[in-house]
Amino acid sequence: MANNSTGTVFTVTTFGESHGPALGCIVDGCPAGLPLDIADIRAELSRRRPGGGGPSTTRAEADEPEILSGVFEGKTLGTPIAILVRNTNPRSGDYDALKDLYRPGHADWTWEAKYGFRDHRGGGRSSARETLGRVAAGAVAKAFLNTQGIVIRSWTSSAAGVDAPAFGSPGFDIDEVEKNPLRFPSRAGADRVLTKIENLRGLGDSAGGKVSCRVTGLKPGLGEPVFGKLDARLAAAMLSLGAAKGIEFGAGFSAAYAQGSANNDRPIPRRSSRDLPPGVPDLDYDTNTAGGVLGGLSTGMPLEFTVAFKPVPSIAQKQETVDRSGTVRELVIGGRHDVCVCPRAAPVVEAMTALVLADLVLLSRLDRANS
Amino acid sequence: MANNSTGTVFTVTTFGESHGPALGCIVDGCPAGLPLDIADIRAELSRRRPGGGGPSTTRAEADEPEILSGVFEGKTLGTPIAILVRNTNPRSGDYDALKDLYRPGHADWTWEAKYGFRDHRGGGRSSARETLGRVAAGAVAKAFLNTQGIVIRSWTSSAAGVDAPAFGSPGFDIDEVEKNPLRFPSRAGADRVLTKIENLRGLGDSAGGKVSCRVTGLKPGLGEPVFGKLDARLAAAMLSLGAAKGIEFGAGFSAAYAQGSANNDRPIPRRSSRDLPPGVPDLDYDTNTAGGVLGGLSTGMPLEFTVAFKPVPSIAQKQETVDRSGTVRELVIGGRHDVCVCPRAAPVVEAMTALVLADLVLLSRLDRANS
Amino acid sequence: MANNSTGTVFTVTTFGESHGPALGCIVDGCPAGLPLDIADIRAELSRRRPGGGGPSTTRAEADEPEILSGVFEGKTLGTPIAILVRNTNPRSGDYDALKDLYRPGHADWTWEAKYGFRDHRGGGRSSARETLGRVAAGAVAKAFLNTQGIVIRSWTSSAAGVDAPAFGSPGFDIDEVEKNPLRFPSRAGADRVLTKIENLRGLGDSAGGKVSCRVTGLKPGLGEPVFGKLDARLAAAMLSLGAAKGIEFGAGFSAAYAQGSANNDRPIPRRSSRDLPPGVPDLDYDTNTAGGVLGGLSTGMPLEFTVAFKPVPSIAQKQETVDRSGTVRELVIGGRHDVCVCPRAAPVVEAMTALVLADLVLLSRLDRANS
Amino acid sequence: MANNSTGTVFTVTTFGESHGPALGCIVDGCPAGLPLDIADIRAELSRRRPGGGGPSTTRAEADEPEILSGVFEGKTLGTPIAILVRNTNPRSGDYDALKDLYRPGHADWTWEAKYGFRDHRGGGRSSARETLGRVAAGAVAKAFLNTQGIVIRSWTSSAAGVDAPAFGSPGFDIDEVEKNPLRFPSRAGADRVLTKIENLRGLGDSAGGKVSCRVTGLKPGLGEPVFGKLDARLAAAMLSLGAAKGIEFGAGFSAAYAQGSANNDRPIPRRSSRDLPPGVPDLDYDTNTAGGVLGGLSTGMPLEFTVAFKPVPSIAQKQETVDRSGTVRELVIGGRHDVCVCPRAAPVVEAMTALVLADLVLLSRLDRANS
Repeated sequence: MANNSTGTVFTVTTFGESHGPALGCIVDGCPAGLPLDIADIRAELSRRRPGGGGPSTTRAEADEPEILSGVFEGKTLGTPIAILVRNTNPRSGDYDALKDLYRPGHADWTWEAKYGFRDHRGGGRSSARETLGRVAAGAVAKAFLNTQGIVIRSWTSSAAGVDAPAFGSPGFDIDEVEKNPLRFPSRAGADRVLTKIENLRGLGDSAGGKVSCRVTGLKPGLGEPVFGKLDARLAAAMLSLGAAKGIEFGAGFSAAYAQGSANNDRPIPRRSSRDLPPGVPDLDYDTNTAGGVLGGLSTGMPLEFTVAFKPVPSIAQKQETVDRSGTVRELVIGGRHDVCVCPRAAPVVEAMTALVLADLVLLSRLDRANS
Repeated sequence: MANNSTGTVFTVTTFGESHGPALGCIVDGCPAGLPLDIADIRAELSRRRPGGGGPSTTRAEADEPEILSGVFEGKTLGTPIAILVRNTNPRSGDYDALKDLYRPGHADWTWEAKYGFRDHRGGGRSSARETLGRVAAGAVAKAFLNTQGIVIRSWTSSAAGVDAPAFGSPGFDIDEVEKNPLRFPSRAGADRVLTKIENLRGLGDSAGGKVSCRVTGLKPGLGEPVFGKLDARLAAAMLSLGAAKGIEFGAGFSAAYAQGSANNDRPIPRRSSRDLPPGVPDLDYDTNTAGGVLGGLSTGMPLEFTVAFKPVPSIAQKQETVDRSGTVRELVIGGRHDVCVCPRAAPVVEAMTALVLADLVLLSRLDRANS
Repeated sequence: MANNSTGTVFTVTTFGESHGPALGCIVDGCPAGLPLDIADIRAELSRRRPGGGGPSTTRAEADEPEILSGVFEGKTLGTPIAILVRNTNPRSGDYDALKDLYRPGHADWTWEAKYGFRDHRGGGRSSARETLGRVAAGAVAKAFLNTQGIVIRSWTSSAAGVDAPAFGSPGFDIDEVEKNPLRFPSRAGADRVLTKIENLRGLGDSAGGKVSCRVTGLKPGLGEPVFGKLDARLAAAMLSLGAAKGIEFGAGFSAAYAQGSANNDRPIPRRSSRDLPPGVPDLDYDTNTAGGVLGGLSTGMPLEFTVAFKPVPSIAQKQETVDRSGTVRELVIGGRHDVCVCPRAAPVVEAMTALVLADLVLLSRLDRANS
Repeated sequence: MANNSTGTVFTVTTFGESHGPALGCIVDGCPAGLPLDIADIRAELSRRRPGGGGPSTTRAEADEPEILSGVFEGKTLGTPIAILVRNTNPRSGDYDALKDLYRPGHADWTWEAKYGFRDHRGGGRSSARETLGRVAAGAVAKAFLNTQGIVIRSWTSSAAGVDAPAFGSPGFDIDEVEKNPLRFPSRAGADRVLTKIENLRGLGDSAGGKVSCRVTGLKPGLGEPVFGKLDARLAAAMLSLGAAKGIEFGAGFSAAYAQGSANNDRPIPRRSSRDLPPGVPDLDYDTNTAGGVLGGLSTGMPLEFTVAFKPVPSIAQKQETVDRSGTVRELVIGGRHDVCVCPRAAPVVEAMTALVLADLVLLSRLDRANS
C-alpha cells in the first residue's frame, strides 16, 4: 500500500495540497448498509476548523464536504466512499515571499531533499490542512464505531505549560471540552491557557502541548499481533500527524520508573459478561496503568493515551534560515497561524483513532474459524 | 498484509511460539547481490540472548540460526531469505501451573479473548522470544544499511530509576554500552543499576526503563508522507514490542512544554554536499530538537528517539489474579525472567529500526521520475 | 490493500458509481517531477467514450477530467494525484423499471447477495463506466512509461465472429486501429464487423470479441516472482474488467497443444546491448511463442496477450429473469448499450497494462543492492 | 506486500530454491481454532510428487513437511503457520553443465537480467519445485474451506493433444482422476495420453496440456470488486504458475464468438435458500456459461475454469542457445523432467484456488455493517 493510504481492510487514502484545488479522501472497505449522512462529516470538519477567538489560525474556510460516491439512499454501498472538500480561500500570495526559503521547524527542505520539488504554498501537502481528508474519513469510521458502542473522546491535556487535571480527578470536566476554544477539560484551566497564549501571540511566539484520548466500549482482544498491535497502530497514526513528537499509553513514560509489583494491573472478576469466545471468562482490572492494552490487544478497560505536540513552528518573530541558493537569510512568516495546535489536533486525534479502531473491529471478525 | 508482516518493499514476516518447535522469519524484498553471512545473523541473535550475571533471564539457549533460502554463494539472490532458529531448551513444564491462570501484566487473557485459545507455554507467541525472528531479519537489514553508511546504536538510557547521561554529555560513553550487561553508556551508572536490580530481584520485583536509539548516516528526505513517515513507521515498530509503553523523538514530551522560538531548529549552510536532487542546496541545523525528522522526513541530522518500557510483569512475588473459571486465585510465577527488559531490548530496538530504515531507503529510489 | 486499489508502489484507487455524482481515481506513488498535462488524461478518456456511428452506446458525456491534487506547475509533486470526472448526463430514470429485476449476465444479483443492497442505476459500481477512473490513472502511467520508451498498443482482434489478421501478417494495419470506430486493424475487416454488428443491433442482440495488446520497449527482467509475475499481474488486471472471460499470452491456449521442441523460443545473440547488470549478455529470441514473458519476467521481446470478452449482456430482446420477490418475470432492457465492448475496451486494456507496467518498472529499481 | 506473498487477510509467503536447504511457507491470517493435522499437508504434498510410471520426473523426494509454528494441540492458534520441507535429494551436480547456459523456455536469462545473479541449480527459485510451499499452504486453506462445505476438484482436461470429455458429458469420470497417473477423467483417455507421452519421451520431446478446475459449495457473492474480483484473483493465481500461458472462465474464449442472447445465463427461482442478506431472494441459473462468476462475484453455480500449460521446456533433444559470454552454444539437458506438467499441476491449481477462496471467504465476513 502506498504512502497516502492507511488501514488493512478499512482503508483510507487522502489527497490534496493546502492551496491546490481540493482535498479529500477515499474510504474503501466500509461495510455496506451503514447509515451515513453528509451532516456527520460536516460536523467533524467543522470541529477541526479554527474556532472563534481561540488560539487558532483565522483562515476560516467553509470546508464544505461533498460525498462523490459510495453512499446511496442514505446508506453505504460497500463501494469506495469518496469525499471532496474544495479549497475556496487560498490566499496563496501570502506565501510568495517564502518560495525560496526553508522555514525552520517545517518540512520545506526535507520535502525538497526527497522530491526535488515542492508546492511551497502553505506547506503544500505537508500542511496541517492535509488532515482534513483524515477527519472526513474519521467521520465515516465514527459512524461505524457508533453502531458498536465505541465512544472516542479527546481533549487538550496540556498547553502553553498548563497541565489539565487528569481524567477523573477533581477539576476534570469532560463536558467542558467542546465548550471552550482550547478543548481544555476545565473552564478555569482554559482561561489560564488563553491568557498564556495571548501573551505568546503578542511576543510572536508559539506553544507546545498535549492531547489525551480515551476510548470506551472496546471489546477485549482487539488488535493484531505482532505488527498490527492496537498500540502500534495508534502510535503510527498519531506520529503521522505533523507536529506530534511522542506518544504514551496508560502510565507511559512513568512506567519506565515503576516497579512490576505496582505497575501490574490485577485481573478481577467481572459481573456482566461481554461477548467472548466459549470458555473464556470475562474480567476487569483493578487498575489501568496499561492504558487498556496488553500484548497489543485491548483489555476491555478504557483505552488511554497521550500525544505530545511541539510548538507551532510558524512564529511571527524574525528567524534566520537558509535559502535555495544556500545563503543565510532572515525570514518573517506572515499569514494565519495557530499559537498551539492542540485544540484543533484533538478532533484529528479522534479521527485517526477512529480509523484504526474501525479497521481492527472489522479484522476481529476474522479471529476465529467458526465465527 | 497480514498481522505478522511488516514493511512495504523490504518486508519481514516472523513466526514461532516461545515453546514451539522453532521461531524465525522470512525477509522478502532484500535486493540481490548483497553479501550476507550466517555470522552476521548469529552475532545479532547472540546480543539479544541473556548476558552473564546481568539482569536477564537465565534461559540460555544457543539460538543458532540457519539460512534456509535466499542466499547463494554468500550473496542474496533477491528471493525470500528464510531464517530458522530451533527451540532447544523449552522447559515447558515450568508453565503447567499457569495454564488456567491469567498472569497480571501479560497478554494471556487478552489473547484468549481474541482467539478463544492460546499456547500457554511461556506466553506462546506473545513471548519476548518472538523478537528472535525480528532480530534475525534486522541483521539482514543492517547488512544492507551498512552498504549505505548508516549506523544504528541503541543503549539503556534509564533503568530501575537510574538515568544515564544524555548522548554527548559528560559521563556518556558509547563504547561502554556493549561492555556491561546492562548496555548502560556509563560504567559507574551500570554499577548503580546493577545494585538496584539485584535488590529488586531479592524482593521478587522488577523495574522499568528506557532505551534510546541514535542513527547516523541517513540521507535527508527519507520517509514516506503522509502515513509512512519516518517517525510514524518507527513509532509503530517500537510499540509493537511487548513491553513498550511510549516513544518520543528528539525533544519529545518536553517539546510539549517548549516555545516555538526555542524549539525551532535553525537551518545553516553545510559545507560538503550530500547527494541531493539538482537545485536543492544541502544544509545542517544548528540544533536537533526535532530528533532528525521534520514532516516525517529525515533531516540528515542524527535520528534520535527514546522508548519507554514497563517493568517486567513476571515477578516472583505472590500476586492475585483470576483463573479460567472466573475465580480469584493466588499466583506464583516460577521460571526464568529478566528484572528489566532494557538491556535485551536494545538490540531489538536496533533491529526494528533497521527494518524500517531498509524499507525507507529502498522506497527512496522511487521518489523521482528521472532517478 | 482494499478492493478498489491496485498496484504495489504505483497504486491506483478508483471510485464512483455509474449514476452517482462523480467517478475518478487517486494515483499514489507516481514519482515526482513527471510532466503531466490535463490534456493527456482528457485524450485517453475521450478514446473510451462512445465513438460516432460505431457499435457503442450513445451515452455521450463530456467526461471532462479535473486534476484535484498532485500536480503543480505542470509537474507531478510525488503526492497523490486525484482526478475527478463528474457524471453530467445520468438519465437514471431509464433504470427505474429494472430496480427490482436481476438482469441476466449482469452482477445485479451477485452484488445484492454480497452487500444486501445496490445502486441499481446503470449497474452502479459494476457498470463499465467504472473503468473511467482506470483510464484516467492509466493516462498518468502512460506519461511515465513514455519517459521509459515503452509503447502500448491495443486493438480489436476479433468481433462478432470476424477475426482480424494477426499482428504483422498480411492485412494487419496498426495505423488503421484509431481510424475506425471498431479499433479493428484492417479497414476491410472493420467494414465486415460493422455490418455484422448493425445486423445484431437490429435483432436486439450483441456480440463477443477479443482485444489484443502489444507492448514494446520493455527492458528484460521486468516482473516480480513469484506472485507478482508480469503475466500474473496482467491476468488479474484484465480479468478485473467486467466482461472479460479469459486471457492468453503469446501462443496461449494453442501452446497446450504444442510440443516443447517447437514451442521453445531459442535465445540468439543481440548486437546492441540494453542496460543489463554487469556480466549478463544481452540477447534476443528467434521466435516469440512466449509472448515476451518467461518465468513471469519480461524477455525484452514484445509483450503480447489477448483478452476474450463476452457479448454485452444488455440486449434489447425480451428476456426472462427473476425479481426481488423470487418470481419469474419478463424483462426488457432500455437505455444505451454497446453491441460489442471491444472497441471501447481496447483503451481500457491499454490503461490497465500501463498501470501494471508503471508499477513493475518502478519496482525494478529495487532489484539489486548496488543499483 | 512483497513478491513472494499473496492474499489479503489469509496470506501466504513461500520461500526456497530448488536445490537450497529447504522450501516452505508461512500462512498468516488463518483463523484460530481450526483443526489441522500434519497428515493433511503430507497428503497434498504427496499428490504433487512424481507418480509411478506416469509422465512425471523421477526425482522422488520424500517431501516430508514439518509444522514449525501456529498449531497447538491439533488446532490453529491464529498465529503464523510455518511449514518446512527439507530438500533431501538435490543431485545438484546434474546442473553444473548448465551453469553458464540459458535454457530455452526457462527463466535462466530473464532472472539474470533482473537480479544480475541466480542459483542455477535446477532453476533455483524459478523451479516448479517452488510450488511445494504453495501446496503446503493450500492444504491449510483446504482444511478451512472444508468447514465451509467448499470442494475443489482439478484434472487434466487435455494433454499431448488429447482432450478429455467435458465435465458431465459422456465418458467423463471424476472418480478416475486420482486413479491414473495423468489425472485424466477417463480411463481410456488416460491410456491414449500415456501412449502419446511415451512416444514423445522417446523423441526427447514434451507436450502441453490443460488443467480444469471446478469448485462447488461457494455461497453467492464471493469476490471483491473491483480489483479483487474472484476471477481476477484466480487469474493471477494461475498465471503465477511457471508454465501457465492462459486461463478462461466458463465459456471463456468461445464466449468471444457468441451472442448475448445465447450467452446470458437466465436466473431461475431456487427452492432451498442459502444464507443471504435479508430481502435478497436466492436463485439459480439455467445455464452456466459464466463459469460461476458474474461481475467478479460468485453466482453460487459451480465455479469453472481452465488453465493452459505450455510444453515442458526441458527436453532431451539437442537445442541451440546462447551462453554467458553471448556465444551460440549447443545444449543438452540431462536430469529428471516431466513430459507434461498437467498431472502434477492439477493439485497445484487446487492449492492456488484454495488460497484465493480462503481469503475471499474470510473477506466476505466484512461485507455488511451489521453482520
